Amino acid sequence: MSEKPVLNNLASDNTSCACLEVMDAVIATNSGIASSYGDDACSLSLDAIFTEIFETEVRVFPVVSGTAANALALSALTPSFGKVFCHEMSHINTDECAAPEFFTGGAKLIPIASQDGKINPDSLNTVIRGTGVVHSAQPAAVSIAQSCEVGAVYRLDEIAALCATAHDHGLSLHMDGARFANALVALEASPAEMTWKSGVDVLSFGGTKNGCLAAEAVIFFRPELVKSFPFLHKRSGQLISKMRFISAQLEAYVSNDLWLRNARHANAMAARLSTGLGSITGVQLAYPTQSNEIFVHLDRPVIAQLNAGGFNVTEGELDGTAPPRFVTAWNTEAAEIDQLLDAIAAAAV
Amino acid sequence: MSEKPVLNNLASDNTSCACLEVMDAVIATNSGIASSYGDDACSLSLDAIFTEIFETEVRVFPVVSGTAANALALSALTPSFGKVFCHEMSHINTDECAAPEFFTGGAKLIPIASQDGKINPDSLNTVIRGTGVVHSAQPAAVSIAQSCEVGAVYRLDEIAALCATAHDHGLSLHMDGARFANALVALEASPAEMTWKSGVDVLSFGGTKNGCLAAEAVIFFRPELVKSFPFLHKRSGQLISKMRFISAQLEAYVSNDLWLRNARHANAMAARLSTGLGSITGVQLAYPTQSNEIFVHLDRPVIAQLNAGGFNVTEGELDGTAPPRFVTAWNTEAAEIDQLLDAIAAAAV
Amino acid sequence: MSEKPVLNNLASDNTSCACLEVMDAVIATNSGIASSYGDDACSLSLDAIFTEIFETEVRVFPVVSGTAANALALSALTPSFGKVFCHEMSHINTDECAAPEFFTGGAKLIPIASQDGKINPDSLNTVIRGTGVVHSAQPAAVSIAQSCEVGAVYRLDEIAALCATAHDHGLSLHMDGARFANALVALEASPAEMTWKSGVDVLSFGGTKNGCLAAEAVIFFRPELVKSFPFLHKRSGQLISKMRFISAQLEAYVSNDLWLRNARHANAMAARLSTGLGSITGVQLAYPTQSNEIFVHLDRPVIAQLNAGGFNVTEGELDGTAPPRFVTAWNTEAAEIDQLLDAIAAAAV
Amino acid sequence: MSEKPVLNNLASDNTSCACLEVMDAVIATNSGIASSYGDDACSLSLDAIFTEIFETEVRVFPVVSGTAANALALSALTPSFGKVFCHEMSHINTDECAAPEFFTGGAKLIPIASQDGKINPDSLNTVIRGTGVVHSAQPAAVSIAQSCEVGAVYRLDEIAALCATAHDHGLSLHMDGARFANALVALEASPAEMTWKSGVDVLSFGGTKNGCLAAEAVIFFRPELVKSFPFLHKRSGQLISKMRFISAQLEAYVSNDLWLRNARHANAMAARLSTGLGSITGVQLAYPTQSNEIFVHLDRPVIAQLNAGGFNVTEGELDGTAPPRFVTAWNTEAAEIDQLLDAIAAAAV
Repeated sequence: MSEKPVLNNLASDNTSCACLEVMDAVIATNSGIASSYGDDACSLSLDAIFTEIFETEVRVFPVVSGTAANALALSALTPSFGKVFCHEMSHINTDECAAPEFFTGGAKLIPIASQDGKINPDSLNTVIRGTGVVHSAQPAAVSIAQSCEVGAVYRLDEIAALCATAHDHGLSLHMDGARFANALVALEASPAEMTWKSGVDVLSFGGTKNGCLAAEAVIFFRPELVKSFPFLHKRSGQLISKMRFISAQLEAYVSNDLWLRNARHANAMAARLSTGLGSITGVQLAYPTQSNEIFVHLDRPVIAQLNAGGFNVTEGELDGTAPPRFVTAWNTEAAEIDQLLDAIAAAAV
Repeated sequence: MSEKPVLNNLASDNTSCACLEVMDAVIATNSGIASSYGDDACSLSLDAIFTEIFETEVRVFPVVSGTAANALALSALTPSFGKVFCHEMSHINTDECAAPEFFTGGAKLIPIASQDGKINPDSLNTVIRGTGVVHSAQPAAVSIAQSCEVGAVYRLDEIAALCATAHDHGLSLHMDGARFANALVALEASPAEMTWKSGVDVLSFGGTKNGCLAAEAVIFFRPELVKSFPFLHKRSGQLISKMRFISAQLEAYVSNDLWLRNARHANAMAARLSTGLGSITGVQLAYPTQSNEIFVHLDRPVIAQLNAGGFNVTEGELDGTAPPRFVTAWNTEAAEIDQLLDAIAAAAV
Repeated sequence: MSEKPVLNNLASDNTSCACLEVMDAVIATNSGIASSYGDDACSLSLDAIFTEIFETEVRVFPVVSGTAANALALSALTPSFGKVFCHEMSHINTDECAAPEFFTGGAKLIPIASQDGKINPDSLNTVIRGTGVVHSAQPAAVSIAQSCEVGAVYRLDEIAALCATAHDHGLSLHMDGARFANALVALEASPAEMTWKSGVDVLSFGGTKNGCLAAEAVIFFRPELVKSFPFLHKRSGQLISKMRFISAQLEAYVSNDLWLRNARHANAMAARLSTGLGSITGVQLAYPTQSNEIFVHLDRPVIAQLNAGGFNVTEGELDGTAPPRFVTAWNTEAAEIDQLLDAIAAAAV
Repeated sequence: MSEKPVLNNLASDNTSCACLEVMDAVIATNSGIASSYGDDACSLSLDAIFTEIFETEVRVFPVVSGTAANALALSALTPSFGKVFCHEMSHINTDECAAPEFFTGGAKLIPIASQDGKINPDSLNTVIRGTGVVHSAQPAAVSIAQSCEVGAVYRLDEIAALCATAHDHGLSLHMDGARFANALVALEASPAEMTWKSGVDVLSFGGTKNGCLAAEAVIFFRPELVKSFPFLHKRSGQLISKMRFISAQLEAYVSNDLWLRNARHANAMAARLSTGLGSITGVQLAYPTQSNEIFVHLDRPVIAQLNAGGFNVTEGELDGTAPPRFVTAWNTEAAEIDQLLDAIAAAAV
């Protein structure tokens, strides 16, 4: 029987395949010739497509990994002697093997702690220090993840408050949107509202986790920040020669509300899991479920029993103290959720 | 009519689409779940697949662009204060926006000139200087492209001589194999013969130009050189989360001689073009045609007329003095070649 | 009258001049010719001189600033994707404008908090995570300052415990000894005991604050760690052409116990100030006085009055929450201390 | 007898000691306290002092090595993906262990060859390519050495022509003035004429070789280029804590025409040597003698005999093909010159 592979799906949304519509777009673009290095028609149309989605003029640079999107985006916002303020559990701080430091030429990530996985404006305000002092690395940017690393979602007013704090200090605000769509549908907000209308300057727009093969993008909401970004993009090996294959994914992903439908489904499955967990005695959610990630306190024996049963339960993320995590995806099935709930209920007795 | 798009194809092999077999592999892998970040079955099998192809134990790291492959490979071979010796027209020196310098943390590329586009062992021997002298950047690696930037192909004995010179000085040898298959079939050599048996240490193995969507790989022939490469790979944003989509391309590409067939076709089309050009009065090949690139001296008015007719003729590459170039690909049709030849013949009168 | 300049001296030991013996050595070396770039007799003798002082074979690399010493030392201990664990108030983390990140090519400084300004082995043990995991920057080194940023001094057993923790995890231990002599005489330990006998691998040896003009050194206690350091040293612009002028300072500094006498005097003056402060009502030491730095809680009005009176009282260090600081030096006079005490007593009423 | 050490002096001007006036200034500044990190009175006066010397408003940043001066200066002029055009024999290209690449974050040095050691505007014009093309590292700066690496001196009109070419392409011009004073007195030009009046944007101003202990400076002639330079300066470990000791050297060096007198003496000694060499049969100057460096073609047996006699004759510089070099300094004595001439005459028979 195939229970194990099915259930593993909940370890990460990166284990899911691509959705049909995206794959069809890749197949469709695989015909005839097309200019290379982003000069093909599809790639050239991305600015316009995303300008419409975000209701403001944007510049879009496709890349193939979230790490590249984040590190490149930050490299546009900080000098090599700059500081990037982020949550201590943030992906850029813990899971990208110092890519932000590499791409920025040595900028410092200043970790901020909190109980709820979000950065608090007061905490942020406290740690932004040293501007203009030559001995200090220079405050340059704030980076938040939406949804964030514990699956929580910043409310629009929270984003606006952080952006205001950043801007008050002359810093830019970067949003790591690896799970941008999941947060968006959770808030029932518009893309514009969750980004530039709240003050976000640059976005790492994620497509891979939510139905693409490998497609992310760095999106600038303020054209004046683009500056030499095309060179940084090329220099990093992210200007793919047959770029149409990446761009076609992005185009399909945001067409016909595909990205929103995929995200709504993932979030609904997470809610189903969260609700189910809430009814199991002895199991406690570590954070409120707001998007497609569920963190839950499980005793070590429970984890052991789940893993023995073929589940792939993480015990805590690198450099943080994150509890076991389950992640739903665009194609998670209710049966998988129920199977997992049954197994946890059995193990937690 | 669609003449223009067809003919544009000869400006670069990067404008071609992916071949059917590779696309089918991508479609086939898009099913069910798979471990992320290269822990899927297909990615995990690459070492074994390429070990068989190269007849020696290799380590394979998939990446998505040639620039990344080259820059990452070099970063494994040189310290930040090192020197990489290369042809002055080499892609790493002229067309990668200082990516090698970026990935290596500031190594110097030492350009070597020559008439035939290849590095000569004597020239190489002359410029390798300063080893152990603290004032000098330290000789660390030699990089050659096979086929090289003017379409010429290093013979096996030439490769061996360069590798011997490099090794005599304690340097590693990197081969930029963006068009590896084209060179391989031109030489009628085995992959092993053209690499480690001749002394090559690390290879940038190209798939994209010859039928893939976006698939290259850094291949180590000496496991002891891998060292911290997995971290450099991740840090650069090239460890794709859904790596199976890259790995499946590579697997299909080297299965059933697909890569060799594709390359043979491209080379045959190049030969057809080369022969045709040879019979046009007033047109002179700049370099002998040995793989799938043809460089030809064309008068500016001829170029102008060709471009007016919808051909996309390059006038000379960046930072080199390369004459107009035509590149054939795995799917170039004889009719395209003949159409181009007719147009040149008409313009060159 | 000259009260203000005298009293300013207590803002930092960097404001003091060089002591007579060191200056005499500089004058003495300024005669005849000498090989450049460290090949002069004095520079060449440094290894032997410090080998005797440290009772083990060491390698010594003179530099001209503490920032360079620390950043260079760390660059020998961590890969570009490494982690350096340090106190959140450490000089390398807060006062060197991201020099460690620059010199290391992008390594991460992982800040550790504590109440007493020292790193605790348990805290250290907790945060060393991710070794071998490709997503995580790699734990590479621990850096402690002796004396540390709040003027406290690690006991020998504390150093040994931290070194043991570091080594257990395969990390190196770097000691920032900008005030090495002050700590040494505070502990009444030998240079060997406070370094390699306790497990220290590399030391930033400070001379400038304690009587030199500009002379620091990176000292390796394990020759196998030197590796390519001579090239890093040169590449950073710290291999001074007339190196004899730096080396002569270092030689004089450690001759005839000069460095120890200077440090004992500074510490004695600090003790005098500390004792005096203890008897002023309403004034409270922030940390126990153990070397030549005193941190004291002063109300803002008191600070204002002191500064109005010509004292240069710092209100808190960058990126930390350090209270006002007074630093004594090799030439601080008792009268200065008493003058400051009088002023504080008057202001604190 | 002490012939050998005396004669070694001609191997490099870095082997000379500091002149009396500079040493006296260092001694004089060693009194009382002074603000650290360049906030002392002497350091703060440097902008005004050099503004007067250069007859335009300048910004001065003292550093302690020529390598640091050059690499820092270039880091202000080029992005990390930039190109710096320089002579293939230039010190920045051959003798600084990739420091320019390090400080700039990976910029490329593009070497230009010539017979006379100088860059030719036509050659320069030819190699400046790729501006705005994303595949190409971006032309950013031109660097020339005055006097240059073969001892030749650019005439004012030659400097102006190179600056014009650079500026026409939107590039900045950096002058490596390690031997600035020697070139200046050779031209009998004013500091202003040899720099900004000819178009120079940033200067590495050398003091060490011509009478200082360790004092160089980066001088900006266009304040708008300074931008974040203070942070780069600090980040590189070149913001010395007791900066007064560096600044005092610079102040004394340019006071009372000391620097010009020193340079005139060195140049006169070079002329004496050059004239003497011209009268020895079988000895041929490699380049015309224009400042304080003499390059001469000597047969290997002659070199061997000279070295056996205690002379320290270099056989060719790193990465260039420079012939044996003699360098005179501010304190070279006529007797040394004559002694060397006698020895060469004897050996060349």
